[in-house]
Amino acid sequence: MRILITGAAGFLGSHLCDRLILEGHDVIGLDNFVTGSKDNIAHLFGSQHFTFYKHDVSNYIFIPAKLDAVLHFASPASPNPASPYAYFNLPIQTMKAGALGTHNTLGVAKANNARFLLASTSEIYGDPTEHPQKETYAGNVDITGPRAVYDEAKRFAESLTLAYHRQHGVDTRIVRIFNTYGPRMDLEDGRALPNLLKQALLGQSLTVYGDGGQTRSFCYVDDLVEGIYRLLMSDEHMPVNIGNPVEMSILQFAQTINRMTDNTTEITYVDARSSRDPQRRRPDITRAQTILGWEPKVDLEEGLNRTIPYFKQKLGLA
Amino acid sequence: MRILITGAAGFLGSHLCDRLILEGHDVIGLDNFVTGSKDNIAHLFGSQHFTFYKHDVSNYIFIPAKLDAVLHFASPASPNPASPYAYFNLPIQTMKAGALGTHNTLGVAKANNARFLLASTSEIYGDPTEHPQKETYAGNVDITGPRAVYDEAKRFAESLTLAYHRQHGVDTRIVRIFNTYGPRMDLEDGRALPNLLKQALLGQSLTVYGDGGQTRSFCYVDDLVEGIYRLLMSDEHMPVNIGNPVEMSILQFAQTINRMTDNTTEITYVDARSSRDPQRRRPDITRAQTILGWEPKVDLEEGLNRTIPYFKQKLGLA
Repeated sequence: MRILITGAAGFLGSHLCDRLILEGHDVIGLDNFVTGSKDNIAHLFGSQHFTFYKHDVSNYIFIPAKLDAVLHFASPASPNPASPYAYFNLPIQTMKAGALGTHNTLGVAKANNARFLLASTSEIYGDPTEHPQKETYAGNVDITGPRAVYDEAKRFAESLTLAYHRQHGVDTRIVRIFNTYGPRMDLEDGRALPNLLKQALLGQSLTVYGDGGQTRSFCYVDDLVEGIYRLLMSDEHMPVNIGNPVEMSILQFAQTINRMTDNTTEITYVDARSSRDPQRRRPDITRAQTILGWEPKVDLEEGLNRTIPYFKQKLGLA
Repeated sequence: MRILITGAAGFLGSHLCDRLILEGHDVIGLDNFVTGSKDNIAHLFGSQHFTFYKHDVSNYIFIPAKLDAVLHFASPASPNPASPYAYFNLPIQTMKAGALGTHNTLGVAKANNARFLLASTSEIYGDPTEHPQKETYAGNVDITGPRAVYDEAKRFAESLTLAYHRQHGVDTRIVRIFNTYGPRMDLEDGRALPNLLKQALLGQSLTVYGDGGQTRSFCYVDDLVEGIYRLLMSDEHMPVNIGNPVEMSILQFAQTINRMTDNTTEITYVDARSSRDPQRRRPDITRAQTILGWEPKVDLEEGLNRTIPYFKQKLGLA
């Protein structure tokens, strides 16, 4: 197949490029490098199966080739308020990538009679009041809060995708991506894993917000890519959660990281940052298991082992 | 002030045109007549204070005049599955009016340094689990359901409006409009009031879904317009509910209509239509009372008295 992927130079987009090329497909990547990085796709520039265009998906997209599939992964996605690349700090670009970008990429899929896959997110559940989150859960998103620029854009993108499926018969798929980690992730992404792993590798004291009782589930990127690839090859049109359902407290997680990195400093507890930071987030993956025969295979220790060399290199420790 | 209003030929938009002109403003109306009607604004075509352009707000908007305010009211809004003009049946146009239309109109407001007012809706609360609905309630919208094309578009529009306020300093306002009725409403709109009033005036048996215990609150259009005008003239940027908090069961409502129209036929009870139809919807108007000094003045009997002549005329009974 010839496959267009937006956000190709991002963490997830670039891993998808690798996987799609490995499966024998020809990949056309788009990215405007607002949050993506050339480093993530530099190794692909010699491949005859990879073509790249620098382009902002909020603008009209013209691809001079017949496409078989379109994957829309372009969006700022970092929730780190301190990062200039966080969606908080690119609010209008984030909403345009979600609305205009989804509209444009759906148009490309429709014109090519191609299948379409939308990268959605667990953020559409907001600060959930149901655990774990099933795909039928309506979520708890504060429309007026700073996170809404990402959350509401993705909710809109999902509804628009289903509208194109129902109205125009576009062969669409929607993946709701939960917390993912691995090589090529942004160390300044602001999520718990890169923050803590970075501190541990630098021999610093790990910062835990509140009592560390808030929980997270972390999915290794290869597992995520496998799930997305299976969804792309399936006939499922309704949203599917892809993530790791193994839930642990941030405190347990910090202790695991300290152990694996031989970091012996004490943990530092500080005030909880924001009341709108989700307290718990864990996917119910029953649909992925049933429909795609998918579940994660890489446990946290193995995933961290595969991720640490990348972090060391980025930190100048390798 | 020179004021641009999109959806000017709609039920609410046309009443706003009247009010704004009455207040001494110059009004520029846009409408693409997908759901609006020339009949609603025909009386304004002779006015030197009214200019009209037929235009789809999903496309770039150019207004050859300096604007002081922009009101974005354009959208399909009927929830009647049987109507070709319902948002269910115009799903992509509805999402484009909400996302591209809001983006375009915010751009016009920004370029003109004009204040901006977004027509949002109680639909952003979905099928609410909290009663009455405060503006802080996150709602219960099924992203994948057929109503989502309207609900998610309006949620997105609100978040985009706040993003323009925070990022670009645009002087924005957001009104969340609850169930409204009055002259110029679409008789085929699918909501309880026009359905029942039409049946009553035709001497037919009123159709009540389920046991009629589901409740609604109905706001007369003049009250709504007063609230919107006060919001436009205020400095309030966060969403404000405008609606009538007097809640009654559909059964009570049907009985009131029968009494006021001297309709003596028995009520017909039929199976509840759709489990996603909200069971209750009632605004908490504390913010409107506090910030705008607004509350509805027209009670249901008075509002029906003012509405019945319009219905009779449309039904050929006058």
